[in-house]
Amino acid sequence: MSGPNLRRMLAGFEWEQVERLAYKPEGSAPFRDITRQTLFRREGLDCELRYFEIAPGGHSTLERHEHEHAVMILRGAGACLVGRAIHPIGAHDLVAIPALSWHQFRAAPEEPLGFLCMVNVVRDRPRLPDEDELAALRQDPEIAAFIRV
Amino acid sequence: MSGPNLRRMLAGFEWEQVERLAYKPEGSAPFRDITRQTLFRREGLDCELRYFEIAPGGHSTLERHEHEHAVMILRGAGACLVGRAIHPIGAHDLVAIPALSWHQFRAAPEEPLGFLCMVNVVRDRPRLPDEDELAALRQDPEIAAFIRV
Repeated sequence: MSGPNLRRMLAGFEWEQVERLAYKPEGSAPFRDITRQTLFRREGLDCELRYFEIAPGGHSTLERHEHEHAVMILRGAGACLVGRAIHPIGAHDLVAIPALSWHQFRAAPEEPLGFLCMVNVVRDRPRLPDEDELAALRQDPEIAAFIRV
Repeated sequence: MSGPNLRRMLAGFEWEQVERLAYKPEGSAPFRDITRQTLFRREGLDCELRYFEIAPGGHSTLERHEHEHAVMILRGAGACLVGRAIHPIGAHDLVAIPALSWHQFRAAPEEPLGFLCMVNVVRDRPRLPDEDELAALRQDPEIAAFIRV
């Protein structure tokens, strides 16, 4: 029997009692084809655990912030920018996003990319790159080709 | 390329730069055939993310504590006691262990049970049941048959 302490995974990486939400308010930042589900947010826990899923060809926002992310890929394949490194990623790989690192996740063209993200409950807001920061990132041709803004 | 920010999963649910450790010191508490890997423990994060794996037929310690657990099953099958409820569990199910709830995880007889467990960095130590608490738990015949001590 399911209940408040047990929530089963349903088909397609959705869970009982968990709502599939927009990643961010539409128009608030650049992103494409990505959803958000909060798996754990409890008064007694100092972190939240969220599940994000990017549809094939989609991407998260290129951003940075003081707070860190601890990521485990759950399904599919893709790549991520962390700081100045681009990594191909697949199921169960672990990605750490250190404080103030520019980061962006992209799903492969023909596969979704689903991942867990652990984050402090108390955290600062993400910040988008300004023109100068974008120009600095684009000095690396590999990063210039990767990022979507 | 892997590095400090990317650690790939190797075969068999082990990861680059992550050590597979004993669950607890041998003899410190009752358990059987279970290992522990700390996937994320970082200065900037208020929680840790650990991966526990119980071999077929094994079990974690029956215990309780003030701190909460947020669990996602990653592989295999088994069952868990949470408070006074026993739940069959499988891949990607979510289990919350509320404060002071007795809990124990068991792997199925012929399958391992691997799960993520998010926990506050600052937390109290687990406590084992005393004779009176065990007797109270065993008043429920289903719980009496399930627990391993």
